[in-house]
Amino acid sequence: MVDPTSSDRPTMAEIAHAAGVSLATVSKVWNGRADVSDRTRDRVEELLRVHGYRGRRQWHTEAAGTVDVIFSEIDCAWEGEHLRGIEAAAHEAGARVVVSSLDRGETARRQLLQRLRAGRTDGAILATMTAAGPLVAALNRLNVPVVALDPLRAPAGDLLSVDAANFAGARAATAHLLELGHRRIGLVAGLDQLLCSRARLDGFLAAHDEAGVPPDLDLVEHGEFDFPSGIAAGGRLLDRSVPPTAVFAMSDYMAIGVYEAARLRGVSVPDQLSVVGFDDLPGARWAAPPLTTVRQPLREMGALAVRTALGLAGGGVLDTQLVVRESTAPI
Amino acid sequence: MVDPTSSDRPTMAEIAHAAGVSLATVSKVWNGRADVSDRTRDRVEELLRVHGYRGRRQWHTEAAGTVDVIFSEIDCAWEGEHLRGIEAAAHEAGARVVVSSLDRGETARRQLLQRLRAGRTDGAILATMTAAGPLVAALNRLNVPVVALDPLRAPAGDLLSVDAANFAGARAATAHLLELGHRRIGLVAGLDQLLCSRARLDGFLAAHDEAGVPPDLDLVEHGEFDFPSGIAAGGRLLDRSVPPTAVFAMSDYMAIGVYEAARLRGVSVPDQLSVVGFDDLPGARWAAPPLTTVRQPLREMGALAVRTALGLAGGGVLDTQLVVRESTAPI
Repeated sequence: MVDPTSSDRPTMAEIAHAAGVSLATVSKVWNGRADVSDRTRDRVEELLRVHGYRGRRQWHTEAAGTVDVIFSEIDCAWEGEHLRGIEAAAHEAGARVVVSSLDRGETARRQLLQRLRAGRTDGAILATMTAAGPLVAALNRLNVPVVALDPLRAPAGDLLSVDAANFAGARAATAHLLELGHRRIGLVAGLDQLLCSRARLDGFLAAHDEAGVPPDLDLVEHGEFDFPSGIAAGGRLLDRSVPPTAVFAMSDYMAIGVYEAARLRGVSVPDQLSVVGFDDLPGARWAAPPLTTVRQPLREMGALAVRTALGLAGGGVLDTQLVVRESTAPI
Repeated sequence: MVDPTSSDRPTMAEIAHAAGVSLATVSKVWNGRADVSDRTRDRVEELLRVHGYRGRRQWHTEAAGTVDVIFSEIDCAWEGEHLRGIEAAAHEAGARVVVSSLDRGETARRQLLQRLRAGRTDGAILATMTAAGPLVAALNRLNVPVVALDPLRAPAGDLLSVDAANFAGARAATAHLLELGHRRIGLVAGLDQLLCSRARLDGFLAAHDEAGVPPDLDLVEHGEFDFPSGIAAGGRLLDRSVPPTAVFAMSDYMAIGVYEAARLRGVSVPDQLSVVGFDDLPGARWAAPPLTTVRQPLREMGALAVRTALGLAGGGVLDTQLVVRESTAPI
């Protein structure tokens, strides 16, 4: 790197003269300010570059904030929506977003830590079920602020987290079915040990309790939040001697899986079976019929996670909202 | 930063002694190598940190490769799939992935360039329709290798690009419908000026030509690759006095929109209408019925884009593949 103070090249004033602009303008470009026309910026940039004015860029590197986002895997559902909110909020804060995925296992985790040790990060967002694991301990030792985004297990110790209102969402979804007159409501639950599964199950039970309707626990099946397990769980429910008239699935993917199980059995949604999902991923609108579901504010959650990681917020729980479409009908 | 050569703190040998490990082990940790147990690494890290050994990390920052990925917007469809391949390939190359989106317009573009000017990037992947725009010129002036990922318009000059075999994919999709006996095949095309639209239209026409079947250009409607425009275009086709018996849509989103247009008219897929999409996004498998579509190797494209940006590959065109599911039937 050429020492910006060395005299073996034109001064900024000379560069300003050569570019036909004021010294103030050269300074603006040099400092990476935005209030310069592209044409001027490009001309000045070029002159600065050929004359070795690079030191300031290095300084900018150190000044620029970096938020590391760590996914267990980059799917094109939650992760895409989360990332959209993360990128927008980081952009507003003038920080850049570095994305990592742990779906290559231990090697990925080691290499990630290596990168974090080596590089500069101003905060890490853990959108991964390993949030409570050794990763957090390692990040803490690196003095990196850590935020758990929608943690699937209880965050370790005093870890800040950003969550959706899972209990309230499940209660609203179940109350909607009860208000439509359904009394035999099947539940396609997620994995029991996950935080959101427990909170949504509690909401399902609370809605029954509030309506004075005993929940039928024989109609509870479990899936893994994905489409295939939704087909399987939905099939098990529809193959009961007395099948449910409605199903609440703890994810949109599983709800669409219930659609498929119904389609394969010639059961029509919503005429013969009402279905409610959870998430409101884009696909919920495209389902046939459009899926009634509980909206998770995934982008807003991503944005809050960034602000929390950068110390501008303290985490929190964001509201969910029931979105009634065409997959539910009165019994 | 404490000067690593200053003597006002323990030497590495003394730190090794304090940690109860060999000097070689301290050196490994110091150099961010992975072949150290987590427990040992953590203990040594802590000692190095409290004694101000930070210089090497700075050095690592400079050594770590960075690939900037620039989206026009972060959607949870193509972008999520592309990003998955990008992250995996960057990880293999030991580079980190910085994600930016331009969906906040001119301000976003300016701030992005500001970040790129300020920071160090080893290559940029443009997954955006602005690929041919001033962004490329600016990146070239910054001496940043640029790769256009699936460019929607012809890349400027000698810009390397990574594409899918759009012509071959559309030809295979159309030939599939022709082989099933369909003669009135509707086309839901994308925007005419986009590269992929043109290539897919050519494939559609070539398949007709090869089968000796004149294409019915009265059955061509246009959409914008999304779900709503698919509903509209599908509706226009189905409302013809003599509607098509099959539709090829240039995107899965538009194909699912055709599903919805058919559902709203009581037209059953595939019994009364065969539908083929393009992309093979995850949602294609979850559609009812599962969608016959042309698979784009989105992850592989993302991976090739990374290798190209890092100078390990020279771009290229990746094969597409017809995936026959349940949305197409003989007439």
